[in-house]
Amino acid sequence: MQVDGKPYRSIWVNADGITIDVIDQTRLPHEFEILNLKTLADSCAAIRDMVVRGAPLIGATAAYGVYLAMLQEPSNAALDRACETLYATRPTAVNLRWALDRMRALLSDITPAERSDRALTEAGRIAELDVEINQRIGRHGLELIRKVAAGKKPGAAVNILTHCNAGWLATVDWGTATAPIYMAHDAGIPLQVWVDETRPRNQGANLTAWELGHHGVPHSLVVDNAGGHLMQQGMVDLCLVGSDRTTRSGDVCNKIGTYLKALAAHDNEVPFYVCLPSTTIDWNIGDGFSDIPIEQRGADEVTQIAGKLPDGGMGTVVIAPEGTGVVNYAFDVTPARLVTGLITERGMAEASEAGLANLFSDGASKGTD
Amino acid sequence: MQVDGKPYRSIWVNADGITIDVIDQTRLPHEFEILNLKTLADSCAAIRDMVVRGAPLIGATAAYGVYLAMLQEPSNAALDRACETLYATRPTAVNLRWALDRMRALLSDITPAERSDRALTEAGRIAELDVEINQRIGRHGLELIRKVAAGKKPGAAVNILTHCNAGWLATVDWGTATAPIYMAHDAGIPLQVWVDETRPRNQGANLTAWELGHHGVPHSLVVDNAGGHLMQQGMVDLCLVGSDRTTRSGDVCNKIGTYLKALAAHDNEVPFYVCLPSTTIDWNIGDGFSDIPIEQRGADEVTQIAGKLPDGGMGTVVIAPEGTGVVNYAFDVTPARLVTGLITERGMAEASEAGLANLFSDGASKGTD
Repeated sequence: MQVDGKPYRSIWVNADGITIDVIDQTRLPHEFEILNLKTLADSCAAIRDMVVRGAPLIGATAAYGVYLAMLQEPSNAALDRACETLYATRPTAVNLRWALDRMRALLSDITPAERSDRALTEAGRIAELDVEINQRIGRHGLELIRKVAAGKKPGAAVNILTHCNAGWLATVDWGTATAPIYMAHDAGIPLQVWVDETRPRNQGANLTAWELGHHGVPHSLVVDNAGGHLMQQGMVDLCLVGSDRTTRSGDVCNKIGTYLKALAAHDNEVPFYVCLPSTTIDWNIGDGFSDIPIEQRGADEVTQIAGKLPDGGMGTVVIAPEGTGVVNYAFDVTPARLVTGLITERGMAEASEAGLANLFSDGASKGTD
Repeated sequence: MQVDGKPYRSIWVNADGITIDVIDQTRLPHEFEILNLKTLADSCAAIRDMVVRGAPLIGATAAYGVYLAMLQEPSNAALDRACETLYATRPTAVNLRWALDRMRALLSDITPAERSDRALTEAGRIAELDVEINQRIGRHGLELIRKVAAGKKPGAAVNILTHCNAGWLATVDWGTATAPIYMAHDAGIPLQVWVDETRPRNQGANLTAWELGHHGVPHSLVVDNAGGHLMQQGMVDLCLVGSDRTTRSGDVCNKIGTYLKALAAHDNEVPFYVCLPSTTIDWNIGDGFSDIPIEQRGADEVTQIAGKLPDGGMGTVVIAPEGTGVVNYAFDVTPARLVTGLITERGMAEASEAGLANLFSDGASKGTD
């Protein structure tokens, strides 16, 4: 998307045609810096240190990481080592495994001499595939936003609430939940986006507000506590969120707090849509509550908050008494009954086993492509 | 309540028998400091700078402020000036107006020579009245907690979720939502309290966690996003929150985010109780949604977070892109249908016009006493 009028993706081939560039997301929103990846080690560090984050972007970065490894040394041993090293950076990331398996399968079958070229092409295809999926999600979501706009006074903004960052920074471009937003904005539909700050890691305040602002989409930052009141007051027309994992029955595992917004949407008859690439549907899981383990993360994420100090440097403040016990679940599960619809690259599905089975009756999404 | 084994209130007469001491709440949870108030100006500054906060404590501080003014100069003009100056410090605080009206009415009728003594006595009565009300709320809430404990395995903790700080620091002692918690803990009932950090001002992280910790009540800090997941997982037995204002129909205006927790409690059949002194019932208001104006506060509360820096000093970090638009509502309204019961100093009322009218059929709470 645009950063102050210039189009960007979150990862791309440098102008030298050889190395890879990414946006350093650890410095957002305070500094916009491009980091150049030259080696496998650079790629691993970028994933591990969260310079890049978001499942699709992690997958693309890993694919380019394999390419950079093949540039250095295209042997079978180097290919194995590259895949294993990259996998270890964030072993719970589903797209990481998928991208690495795809790269390894392709490159194993060809001679070492061909590997770096083919790896570059294939990593590019993985990136393009993500862009295409998000564009499709965007087009399906755009139709929804158009309908909402048609029901409002001419010129009145469509009010959309989103949680966390399911934005272009989490993908290669467009984002999942933000793709409909960018398309509607680019199509001239007036929007007002409520951005949940999304404690504890503040991805809404740090990343979503940054993306929307630099693309020119009108938005307001709110604390996570505010969404219920906004919906009660008729200030939200629809909710659009992403999904880390969706069960075959339509339960949605997403950033902690998503469930609370879905409850408020349901209580106030605000449509609640989840935007997801079908690769995040877990067809093996029927019940999101008993079958999805919820990651617990460290106390420091809650008790310490990072940001920009008055002197312009980055710093951290502690907001709780020393030694306070913390419980920090990273995700929650929104039951399918609270989800108005699942917006996938194939279109909208009802959040139910029948709805998903119907949309994916050919089983295409059950593979990795 | 206790601070590391020593009993404290949030305001008291200094050992000199003349001046007034308060806990400097702006320094919590990082520093525990007592501030001595000697003059009207000291009292005004304490309220205005939020050294003291919470409606009952503001009321008591204002009453002692009138006393300190009378010590300096007991004339009619000085009495009027003291009340006006104190009122201007936080003009939206209901208890402030109430305490000042009570002090002024009493002192106007007596000679200047008697005023400082009577003012000290009356301020003490206002403080004691708050303590007594909270103790009564506590005893009624304790019965509820006992019942929950009786339904659990012997020794298993009762899990209570609370939002914001309706604790002893917001009152003179005991707190409203925390009074049942302290009484249950002191009675030996094992507890585990989930403390919502309560963005944007983090009163949960800064104050509730501090209070509970120093009194020895087991607790865990969670982000505001977490409560829904905790309730889905059966990790919350009941919710106890305070109320800034309650309508005669039982709608509860409280810190922003309370409504989201009430929705989650309802969705998971977790009892949701609101603890309130009957003085916060607004008998003139029937509909909390159309008739309670919700205060909007500054953007800085959301974009900047204060805490302790690594060097031990206090500091602030910015967590949003420069110039991000913010909407910051301070309160929301939880509809009566989501409230299991209102715990008042008179006992439990159903959250309904009939329930409240029945408990207060003699009209006693409709006055100021």
